[in-house]
Amino acid sequence: MSQSLRRMQYAVRGEVVLKADKLAAEGRKITYTNVGNPHAVGQQPITFYRQVLALCDLPASCGVDHPNASQLFPLDVLERARELRGIVGKGGTGSYTNSQGLAGIRKHVAEYILNRDGHSAYEGDIFLTNGASTGIEFILNGLISHDHDAIMIPIPQYPIYSALITKLGGRKIGYELDEELGWTVTEGELQRRLNEAKAKKLNVKGMALINPGNPTGQVLQRKDLEMICRFCARNGILLMADEVYQRNVYVKDRKFISAKKIAVETPGCENLELVSFHSTSKGLIGECGRRGGYMELHCIDPYVQSQIYKLASSALCSGVDGQLMTSLMVKGPAEGSDSYTLFVEEERAIFQSLQRRAKKMVDGLNRIDGITCNQAEGAMYAFPRVIIPQSAVDAAEASDQTPDTLYALSLLEETGICVVPASGFGQKKGRIGFRTTFLPPEDDLEVAIGEMARHHNFFCQKYS
Amino acid sequence: MSQSLRRMQYAVRGEVVLKADKLAAEGRKITYTNVGNPHAVGQQPITFYRQVLALCDLPASCGVDHPNASQLFPLDVLERARELRGIVGKGGTGSYTNSQGLAGIRKHVAEYILNRDGHSAYEGDIFLTNGASTGIEFILNGLISHDHDAIMIPIPQYPIYSALITKLGGRKIGYELDEELGWTVTEGELQRRLNEAKAKKLNVKGMALINPGNPTGQVLQRKDLEMICRFCARNGILLMADEVYQRNVYVKDRKFISAKKIAVETPGCENLELVSFHSTSKGLIGECGRRGGYMELHCIDPYVQSQIYKLASSALCSGVDGQLMTSLMVKGPAEGSDSYTLFVEEERAIFQSLQRRAKKMVDGLNRIDGITCNQAEGAMYAFPRVIIPQSAVDAAEASDQTPDTLYALSLLEETGICVVPASGFGQKKGRIGFRTTFLPPEDDLEVAIGEMARHHNFFCQKYS
Repeated sequence: MSQSLRRMQYAVRGEVVLKADKLAAEGRKITYTNVGNPHAVGQQPITFYRQVLALCDLPASCGVDHPNASQLFPLDVLERARELRGIVGKGGTGSYTNSQGLAGIRKHVAEYILNRDGHSAYEGDIFLTNGASTGIEFILNGLISHDHDAIMIPIPQYPIYSALITKLGGRKIGYELDEELGWTVTEGELQRRLNEAKAKKLNVKGMALINPGNPTGQVLQRKDLEMICRFCARNGILLMADEVYQRNVYVKDRKFISAKKIAVETPGCENLELVSFHSTSKGLIGECGRRGGYMELHCIDPYVQSQIYKLASSALCSGVDGQLMTSLMVKGPAEGSDSYTLFVEEERAIFQSLQRRAKKMVDGLNRIDGITCNQAEGAMYAFPRVIIPQSAVDAAEASDQTPDTLYALSLLEETGICVVPASGFGQKKGRIGFRTTFLPPEDDLEVAIGEMARHHNFFCQKYS
Repeated sequence: MSQSLRRMQYAVRGEVVLKADKLAAEGRKITYTNVGNPHAVGQQPITFYRQVLALCDLPASCGVDHPNASQLFPLDVLERARELRGIVGKGGTGSYTNSQGLAGIRKHVAEYILNRDGHSAYEGDIFLTNGASTGIEFILNGLISHDHDAIMIPIPQYPIYSALITKLGGRKIGYELDEELGWTVTEGELQRRLNEAKAKKLNVKGMALINPGNPTGQVLQRKDLEMICRFCARNGILLMADEVYQRNVYVKDRKFISAKKIAVETPGCENLELVSFHSTSKGLIGECGRRGGYMELHCIDPYVQSQIYKLASSALCSGVDGQLMTSLMVKGPAEGSDSYTLFVEEERAIFQSLQRRAKKMVDGLNRIDGITCNQAEGAMYAFPRVIIPQSAVDAAEASDQTPDTLYALSLLEETGICVVPASGFGQKKGRIGFRTTFLPPEDDLEVAIGEMARHHNFFCQKYS
């Protein structure tokens, strides 16, 4: 049994979630807020996407060329499906593609990046991946060779980074996001952690940046991004920019800016090695089950890129379904086409509801005495801090649990709400908290907040 | 840059294929026979599968509940789609599933295994995976911890094993399949290799068995399987049974028998740890682009299984599209239903054509003076041996290539046919050969064999 696998932790589907699954199997109603899985808690798929996908899969005679097809499908859907069928080629959706993904779809991604950033992108630098996860694993796999190879990760972070670094036998160097400063990071903190790592003779190869933040929800400003990009460039650290929530920004005074844009526009970043990740699982799409996504390699040595290609080849290719969804994500229906009005309405409804729920969840948590929570400027999560009696902390220690695992298990048992203990993401020593999505439907969210308040009182009384 | 990644080789998409892609980009017509990708070379998808898939993806109001749905879809397709939509649940195909895959689909797989083997299977032991590849990687990841952990692999083997073992930093112990004996393995050979490994202080953790064989096409008989299972059980070696070609058996005197059936029925195998792999990419389906498949864990320690679950969780879940295809693979349309006749016809046509092409390819190769090839009893490949002049061998060595890479590159340049050098799979010292699929359409295959003959003469004259 691999020791590094044994040590690997993945809290998002860890102890509390396994317990929740057990209770659900026994018939208990569970509100899952442990994972950003929008459709599972009621978000509807966007019609245009699904219609195009279906027509890509159907044999032409049963789909695009069927005499009755226009009774089920709008004309622009039929057209878009024909375009994608052309890109997929004669072998259709049942064939392996190029290891990097279909070239035509990588062109769509490159056009999207150009429109987003105002700087060109090249399809040869795009890899289509199964969600963002496989891309992240490819890059970490390329970076980590020895147990003195280290990756800087934010604390708190999304646990795919810590899990994969542990699995690959590398070292994690946490840099703390400052809760008081809205979860930003200072240059002093980055430099201090890098110095500590160097003092331990560690070789810092890469840094993960999650923007908008998961689990913390902050949207970074240009000056912070410039500082981070310069820091990485100066120190020869490859920057992994996890930007899967780029469409999920809910506050007026923040705007998503890509690390790629900063890298191109900022003096001192000319040699920054950067890989950016995006996914069809988040945004307004939420198509997690497709496992679609892409990564863009920027300023990566061609030899290293050829090694990443080899790695992608050993899994043959990402799923074609996810590749098609990636194309649809970066290229919706044309303005004025049959599907356009419905598409815009569906997107707007999803966005506005997410925006309302972000505020409702955070405001509701802050109304609970003993819970405080920063604003969720973006992403899909609130990451509150809870104050609990010392005897609860002692009880947790006595049972060899973190205090927030004790708290989350108690919340689950008392209310059926499944959150993830904040320790699964990492946090400042002494902090106790949890991560919850704000994805359940608005009425359920209201009830959940009430239940969280009731449980918090119950828990504090039990241990006071 | 990771050293083990650098060392990793994956010939199926290696040097010769990259060269072929380059020629194709320059406008050259390439016949790709490097990878078992049936749809890409003309195999048509099975209608029933695609119709059900499309209806699972379409929102109900545009699909199963659309008033005109029955004008496009047979009734049993609508029914099957409703059943699968029920299993997927309210979140639909856009949700992450359980890390192991949807429980209802794992039940279908368990029923299929019961029907196939006459022995029960349990859905809790089934993991749905992205093709067989991710399952194989999960298991190897669990087994390999140190550079003295070793896995026995057949020589020749499918290179996913060698590639992943190298990537994970483990050691490969090749056991040779005997070409003279129809690519079987003897107990003496297994024992000799195990002894050698022990003498080197290696810890042999697992063994890969590919049946029907890839690249070699043999279908193992019961007595051979019993020997192998007993050998693994006796030596505490986990057996990885790669059975993705279980439907691809073309000769009358051979029948696929699963390692699971042997493990259950054979005295001495009570404690055999076994993981079996299957895929939607092969068989008569050939739906490579779906990345669907499953693995069954048999007699695996529950703690180890929980670690495999954790690993599956870190990639969240396999693609839902592939999960649905796995259900369809193990459970086709019911006898007598609207789709049944067409389904049986489509399957039969694919099977009979594969059977004809297997024979045509091998017979054609054997007619070429200087090429010999064992019968392809199963799978999708011929693995011929070629006799070439010593001066060609010398020329290859002088240019730091294997002789069969020189041969395969020459074949590509001269004829546009892309094969994989046999050295990419491993072979006996001194043997020279290649692997070719027999998947191109029958007429193209005829032409390809003629071209292979022409090239062989050309090559031998060039170097004589």
